[in-house]
Amino acid sequence: MASLERQLGPKGFTRDPLAMEPWLSDWRGRVHGKAAALLSPANVDEVQAIVQLAAEARVAIVPQGGNSSMVAGATPSAAGDALLLSLRRMNAIRSLSPEDNVAIAEAGVILSDLHEAAARIGRRFPLSLGAKGTARIGGLISTNAGGTQVLRFGTMRSLVVGIEAVLPSGERFDGLSALRKDNRGYDLRQLLVGAEGTLGVVTAASLRLVPAVGARAVAWVGLAGPPAALTLLRRLEAATGESIESFEAMPANALAAVLRNIPGTRAPLAGTHEWNILVEATAPVGAPDPVDALTGLLGAAQEDELIEDAVVAASEAQAEALWKLRESIAEAERVDGPAAKHDVSVPVSAVPDFLVEARAAVEKRFAGSRVLAFGHLGDGNIHFNVQPPVGADGAAWLESEGAAVNAFVHDFVGVRGGSLSAEHGIGQLKLAEFARTAGPVRLHALQAIKRALDPLGIMNPGKLVPPPA
Amino acid sequence: MASLERQLGPKGFTRDPLAMEPWLSDWRGRVHGKAAALLSPANVDEVQAIVQLAAEARVAIVPQGGNSSMVAGATPSAAGDALLLSLRRMNAIRSLSPEDNVAIAEAGVILSDLHEAAARIGRRFPLSLGAKGTARIGGLISTNAGGTQVLRFGTMRSLVVGIEAVLPSGERFDGLSALRKDNRGYDLRQLLVGAEGTLGVVTAASLRLVPAVGARAVAWVGLAGPPAALTLLRRLEAATGESIESFEAMPANALAAVLRNIPGTRAPLAGTHEWNILVEATAPVGAPDPVDALTGLLGAAQEDELIEDAVVAASEAQAEALWKLRESIAEAERVDGPAAKHDVSVPVSAVPDFLVEARAAVEKRFAGSRVLAFGHLGDGNIHFNVQPPVGADGAAWLESEGAAVNAFVHDFVGVRGGSLSAEHGIGQLKLAEFARTAGPVRLHALQAIKRALDPLGIMNPGKLVPPPA
Repeated sequence: MASLERQLGPKGFTRDPLAMEPWLSDWRGRVHGKAAALLSPANVDEVQAIVQLAAEARVAIVPQGGNSSMVAGATPSAAGDALLLSLRRMNAIRSLSPEDNVAIAEAGVILSDLHEAAARIGRRFPLSLGAKGTARIGGLISTNAGGTQVLRFGTMRSLVVGIEAVLPSGERFDGLSALRKDNRGYDLRQLLVGAEGTLGVVTAASLRLVPAVGARAVAWVGLAGPPAALTLLRRLEAATGESIESFEAMPANALAAVLRNIPGTRAPLAGTHEWNILVEATAPVGAPDPVDALTGLLGAAQEDELIEDAVVAASEAQAEALWKLRESIAEAERVDGPAAKHDVSVPVSAVPDFLVEARAAVEKRFAGSRVLAFGHLGDGNIHFNVQPPVGADGAAWLESEGAAVNAFVHDFVGVRGGSLSAEHGIGQLKLAEFARTAGPVRLHALQAIKRALDPLGIMNPGKLVPPPA
Repeated sequence: MASLERQLGPKGFTRDPLAMEPWLSDWRGRVHGKAAALLSPANVDEVQAIVQLAAEARVAIVPQGGNSSMVAGATPSAAGDALLLSLRRMNAIRSLSPEDNVAIAEAGVILSDLHEAAARIGRRFPLSLGAKGTARIGGLISTNAGGTQVLRFGTMRSLVVGIEAVLPSGERFDGLSALRKDNRGYDLRQLLVGAEGTLGVVTAASLRLVPAVGARAVAWVGLAGPPAALTLLRRLEAATGESIESFEAMPANALAAVLRNIPGTRAPLAGTHEWNILVEATAPVGAPDPVDALTGLLGAAQEDELIEDAVVAASEAQAEALWKLRESIAEAERVDGPAAKHDVSVPVSAVPDFLVEARAAVEKRFAGSRVLAFGHLGDGNIHFNVQPPVGADGAAWLESEGAAVNAFVHDFVGVRGGSLSAEHGIGQLKLAEFARTAGPVRLHALQAIKRALDPLGIMNPGKLVPPPA
């Protein structure tokens, strides 16, 4: 410990409880841990030195970026013997290449900073999510982040073209070279994406950029239900190629919660509709504005009675206002009190039936509970939240029913071939449910890989990989 | 063995030397192996039974699909104790879903058959390559195949959304559910892609489909060199979004070889140019034909003197004729005799300098040798072939100089952050060079993963993973 303190200096090493405190709990304040020290290396050499010393001393390391995990994936255990390894000082964008369409960003770069840097060279990094001002590249990679543009560009996995990491052995993996094609064996980059820091510390990445957006069109659609929504999505995709970037679905009760609880919001359409869709289409610089095409397609859909009503934003301010409705759902829900939340996915074609059947099944099994389900319809990813009965003590209901609700929802998803973690990961909050549902084949393979690359078990223990029985 | 013979029946089991013979050599006839038996299971249950028996008996398994590997990745060793496991009878397309944009295809499905099936439901599977009439899905996945549409759609890795496989333990991994988002730990599907059958037998996959092509425009461009080509590519991409699917670069000597050696071909442009580019742009059904946009952009590029000349195909027959020029290069080269061939990649922006510098360095180091380099410019993937001096005995030259040429080219690529295998894989033909150049970190990680998932070492031994020193 003294050796680390000397090597890292005062900026890179602290045991001061006040300095450590903000980073020892997850951002939603559900899990509180302890750490032997907070290490903040300035470069990959220092990360290597830390991992090597930790390996020698058999001390656990918990990597942390923006600490915005939804599953407490970056919060140390309460034992207090682990080293909290913050990547926040490693926040350089090492290079930006418009020729390669690649940015090399260190793990501590904040997502919105990368957005701005890419825009300055006429490109963009096509992954965005609510926490973009907090979440950092290393965490976004380690959790294979999703967000609102997966429909067109995929998750983080498909945007990572190179990785630099320090492996649990203390060796440095130099995989930054941005090769679009490289068939030299098992793809270690892909293995580190979504590994939640359990196979090593991602220190930097080469990330794919795409042309800047020239124009975007944002529309709000009211329609009867998810089957019509899916038909609309496929029709828009067929007619516009890959210009549809977002296709977010919200039921009437989600929109109502936003209008009720978020100041300054107003209903985008005159009537109410069982389901609402937010659509965004984009076009590159120099190409025709997608607004005419989208307006025409939605008009035709209304004539065909596929949809009930629609409005296309006439200005950037209107577009922002529509997006705010979607992005405020989580906040609006919090105002209404606690809920049992689930981040699940099923095959896209199964979403319509799933939404109807899961809601009915849950509300029947848990009397008085109310389902509020919304999400990324085109990705098959539903944020499926179960609210306590009206008038119930929410916290007490969650305490007594939460685990049963979680198991019920996860099993419902599981038998339909779905996932209990579409985009948030496993961390520690979903570990027990993952262990319960994963099945032996997947569990054995994960445990074998973990053991192979981290035989000492020092990298983010207690996260993602259920311990062998 | 008798038990396998009984279980698989006469269609699924043979030791007849005549029946086995076509599958014991790689398709280019460079490597000849032997096998204890040729097993042709009809379904995944039979594959599981085979792997379980092989594990018990500690017998090696060599999975094989279309046997079109460029690196003898599906050819057994000469020892003769391995079981050759053909997936060719498992050739069902289990489902095609236009709602999910997913096809579930068994490992033995021939690529062109999948193309046709997707077309019948108004979709397409956007991966194509010269061997499409021979190559099969399992092999395309296990080698992370590339081809001519990687620029837009990525390699096989980005098209695989689900995998069913039999692991070396004999366990079945049921990962076919086509979830666009699934963050349950290390991505076993991605680990099996490009694993060359060393971590298990892929038996089926869920594959991404995209909307059918409504119209395509194919152009041939003459220009001064790779820097102009790269500028042109970025200009076309910026102006047309993602409609540019192919951007293939060929130097004058590659085109000359085709015109000289392939009957029925003719020069697409009046003059000769140092470099030639084949461009393909597509548009979905209902969208404007890309021919006008491409014609306009190429006209402007010629006015700007970025390019020297260009022709846009006026008919599908002309488009096919242009593609034939590109696809005949390998055949044209073979007529000219043997060459030391390399399938390398560097970052896209490094391609122009690489082409000039590598050619000069090789032709200087190996007196009289002639470089013929062509390929997927937009992917940074160059097929870099070194022909013997004019008048030399080609075979003898290769025998004496081939290994030195390979090492020289691979080292030249390596110091530029490139890969010695862009799309063909490692197999057995590149194993020694991979072992020599991979470096300890990558090697240790690969060996650890291999040991973890295949502790008995029965899955395609001698391929991809260099044995520990």
